[in-house]
Amino acid sequence: MPVPTAFARDQWYVAAYGSEVGGEEVLARTVCGEPLALYRTPDGQAVALADRCVHRRYPLSEGTLEDGRLVCGYHGFTYDRAGTCVSVPGQTRVPRTARVASYPLAELDGFVWVWIGDPARADASAVPRAPWLADPGWTVVRGMEPLAARYGLLVDNLLDLSHETFLHAGYIGTPEVAATPITTEADEERGIVRVSRHMDDAECPPFYADSTGLKGRVSRWQDIEYHAPCLYLLHSRIAPVGSVPGADGSDPDGFHTEIAYAITPSTETTTYDFWLVARDFAREDEGVSSFLHEFNRTVVLQDVTALDILERVTAEEEDRQVQELSVGIDAGGLAARRILERMIARSAEPAPEPAAVPTPGTPGTPGTPGTPEAVAAR
Amino acid sequence: MPVPTAFARDQWYVAAYGSEVGGEEVLARTVCGEPLALYRTPDGQAVALADRCVHRRYPLSEGTLEDGRLVCGYHGFTYDRAGTCVSVPGQTRVPRTARVASYPLAELDGFVWVWIGDPARADASAVPRAPWLADPGWTVVRGMEPLAARYGLLVDNLLDLSHETFLHAGYIGTPEVAATPITTEADEERGIVRVSRHMDDAECPPFYADSTGLKGRVSRWQDIEYHAPCLYLLHSRIAPVGSVPGADGSDPDGFHTEIAYAITPSTETTTYDFWLVARDFAREDEGVSSFLHEFNRTVVLQDVTALDILERVTAEEEDRQVQELSVGIDAGGLAARRILERMIARSAEPAPEPAAVPTPGTPGTPGTPGTPEAVAAR
Amino acid sequence: MPVPTAFARDQWYVAAYGSEVGGEEVLARTVCGEPLALYRTPDGQAVALADRCVHRRYPLSEGTLEDGRLVCGYHGFTYDRAGTCVSVPGQTRVPRTARVASYPLAELDGFVWVWIGDPARADASAVPRAPWLADPGWTVVRGMEPLAARYGLLVDNLLDLSHETFLHAGYIGTPEVAATPITTEADEERGIVRVSRHMDDAECPPFYADSTGLKGRVSRWQDIEYHAPCLYLLHSRIAPVGSVPGADGSDPDGFHTEIAYAITPSTETTTYDFWLVARDFAREDEGVSSFLHEFNRTVVLQDVTALDILERVTAEEEDRQVQELSVGIDAGGLAARRILERMIARSAEPAPEPAAVPTPGTPGTPGTPGTPEAVAAR
Repeated sequence: MPVPTAFARDQWYVAAYGSEVGGEEVLARTVCGEPLALYRTPDGQAVALADRCVHRRYPLSEGTLEDGRLVCGYHGFTYDRAGTCVSVPGQTRVPRTARVASYPLAELDGFVWVWIGDPARADASAVPRAPWLADPGWTVVRGMEPLAARYGLLVDNLLDLSHETFLHAGYIGTPEVAATPITTEADEERGIVRVSRHMDDAECPPFYADSTGLKGRVSRWQDIEYHAPCLYLLHSRIAPVGSVPGADGSDPDGFHTEIAYAITPSTETTTYDFWLVARDFAREDEGVSSFLHEFNRTVVLQDVTALDILERVTAEEEDRQVQELSVGIDAGGLAARRILERMIARSAEPAPEPAAVPTPGTPGTPGTPGTPEAVAAR
Repeated sequence: MPVPTAFARDQWYVAAYGSEVGGEEVLARTVCGEPLALYRTPDGQAVALADRCVHRRYPLSEGTLEDGRLVCGYHGFTYDRAGTCVSVPGQTRVPRTARVASYPLAELDGFVWVWIGDPARADASAVPRAPWLADPGWTVVRGMEPLAARYGLLVDNLLDLSHETFLHAGYIGTPEVAATPITTEADEERGIVRVSRHMDDAECPPFYADSTGLKGRVSRWQDIEYHAPCLYLLHSRIAPVGSVPGADGSDPDGFHTEIAYAITPSTETTTYDFWLVARDFAREDEGVSSFLHEFNRTVVLQDVTALDILERVTAEEEDRQVQELSVGIDAGGLAARRILERMIARSAEPAPEPAAVPTPGTPGTPGTPGTPEAVAAR
Repeated sequence: MPVPTAFARDQWYVAAYGSEVGGEEVLARTVCGEPLALYRTPDGQAVALADRCVHRRYPLSEGTLEDGRLVCGYHGFTYDRAGTCVSVPGQTRVPRTARVASYPLAELDGFVWVWIGDPARADASAVPRAPWLADPGWTVVRGMEPLAARYGLLVDNLLDLSHETFLHAGYIGTPEVAATPITTEADEERGIVRVSRHMDDAECPPFYADSTGLKGRVSRWQDIEYHAPCLYLLHSRIAPVGSVPGADGSDPDGFHTEIAYAITPSTETTTYDFWLVARDFAREDEGVSSFLHEFNRTVVLQDVTALDILERVTAEEEDRQVQELSVGIDAGGLAARRILERMIARSAEPAPEPAAVPTPGTPGTPGTPGTPEAVAAR
């Protein structure tokens, strides 16, 4: 069961933060190998079109926006939000087949989710949620780092936090992380992996000591919830040693941090690493926010450096069937790989009903041109 | 009919400006995949030798010139202008097979043309001409930009000037360029494509307003003459609205600009983009020359940026048989592709008479070693 | 007989200078395509482990040293000097197969030699010697330049010093080098090539004039001894014209320079170019040392520049079976290629006795895990 490089199709992926998509500039993102041009119409709706003009394949993301229409920057072919070409230079007639795919899109919790696969199967109610990311009761810092590594390496990385002790030593890693056993649960049906590590008497990383004011040793809980393929949630709780939440869920002594990652495959060997940290304490403290942002970015970049190295190793060894050796800490990562492999296999199966005939000029793009571009919007 | 990447052989290509080829330094250029070492002998004749020493394949262009002979910079093998090795280190005998190809060469209109193909078929009278480029009645500004794109993308670009409206908006592009219909003629026999666009009442681009002094709207004619594979001429005329040349060809109210490009394939995915602008007005005005040079270079670099992007797209999509969608503006470009494809197919046919047996040590080079290197020289 | 790119296995190669290998930092080197992590244990012994953790293939050279054990920087798998994993995070049991190869190693004459091949065949008494490099009677300057070229191109370069006249003109090259005939001897059995060039009345390169104080013309001897595949020795003697060593080997008028290169293939197209210059004159003169270091480095970098160019040419022409043309000066280089080809062919043969079964997790690595890592140490 090696790290997957294929993409699970018929799935929702985060293409951008909502704030990155505007009405002045077009944003280029490649998701699961599919180039997208993202922008916002004057009525505020985000749009994701296939990023290749039907004419000479020039990226539409190099173009300009005019009244919510996207004008190709090379010869001026103009598209509406449904991907239909509405204007061609030098002639009044627009060829019937002049359309690009418009991707099903859902804007939720601050993310712009796009559906990669058969648009007929897109169901916005299946988008996994992380409501605290857009909840005024929480304060969020976030960023996105591009990774020169296959997405499966980031899934591996995040499902096994024992690496914190070594790769992030002095930051979020303490000896107890690697030393404490985990419990793992895989919900294969719903594509969710849960990994929990409860350290009841642990060193408090300086990160948490500084931002919570806790002195001495702490109870530190890490509860991972990975919604394959894209959304990774880490519910983190820090509390004085001995403190536990009440039976009613109340937890006045606990400090809660909701850490989220969106793991979006870009090409087979590159990934968008969206990261967010939401907290319910020191919420108005700009100093804490700015510290958390820098601190967490540093930790993410430690991962980026390591995974970029690992990608080069993996690429070199790919043809040689080099085996890994898995141990107990890998239970979560292996469960994730199994779920991803099943999703990948399933998305390669034929659709239950005949898929739309590919439109000439846009083979390889998944959407039926003209599909309403937004299945759900907040 | 996709953009060609193969090279039409048995054709003349511009390898350099004459002024780039001197007697002190050796110039390295790769034309249609063939590495050339270009230099000038003491009697002023330009020479193009295959840029690989017979000994250990070191580039001769890294060597030095001694009395019009080219000395390899690694071990000192020395060649005369015919490509014959005349000296070998450590011994007096020079092996009989020690020769490199010397390419047929013609220096005309300021260009150094080289013949890529069977030297026996080289005919300097077939070099397409652009006499104004070396005519004292015209003032010329020029440059060369290397392109990280296949040459066919530049042919496409130049044969369809409707892109000026979008890619060069604010420079040479005005709305009328894209909006005005074209007429196209292809002379398949002679390998020439003509595309004409006559705008009788058009906005005057600031470029022309500044350099001609014309105020208000103008008559603007663009007459393209593409001599496949390498020479592209654009006869540009700007005049007050309503003014037409006389029946005798006189045109006192017109301002004429002769724009030329030499489109020289270097490798399969790189191209030399030689550009020149000749004018018959404000001929002594250094300010106009310097403005025109900077302005036109800016426009060329806008093309370079776009075509480099398009090369990356094309390379990515190459295996997927992605189709383009052609419309009326593409008539010239499609005619050019057809002519190029025929030239490529024809140059793959066997020669009418047996070609020279390749010399050991220089397989893959086209020339018969010892062929007189200059078929015609000005 | 083209330049080889395959590696001769079952051979000793220089991986590093001894001074580069310490107990604080781990040194990464790739020898014959095999990634190595080099470090020194607290008792001073150099160790070379396969540079890939058995767990997730992370490079061990990114890790840290703790009490002479190597701790993986990703998840903390810990290895002893024999390559045996002694600690795994989150559990007390260490899987039986958790081992990486430990390479046979010999530290001699200032070099760290590693054995690439079947560890059972490693014999440290077969390491070729250059004793003056670690002899207090000699003063040594040295360096290492990475080469973006296949090792065979460096072998070619060093076996034919006639290139000094052209590539190193003004440095160590004078007209007499290329003009003086050589004698060549190949000891195919022992894998040694000898090339001698004795110039009895030659210009003295400024290099030697400055450091020896000799005026006017000199007798200059160059005696090459290449111990394939890795060690190249050049015994250089400069003396007044007419002076010859006595019958007893005494040579009071001669100035001796022992130049050594270790030619270590890294990947198929990259090489470590270790270079050393030992002298028996002006031994305490720091000015001479510093001059010699800079001077020789400049000469080595001239070779690096040329060979990097030649690698690009070779890679481009590889599929086209382009032939070289060899002459008298190439006798040494051709003999070296023959010997290397035989070594390569021989190392592809099955071992006389069954080789160890590859350990899961480290296929492609040569060593039997657990092999004592140091066959011989100074």
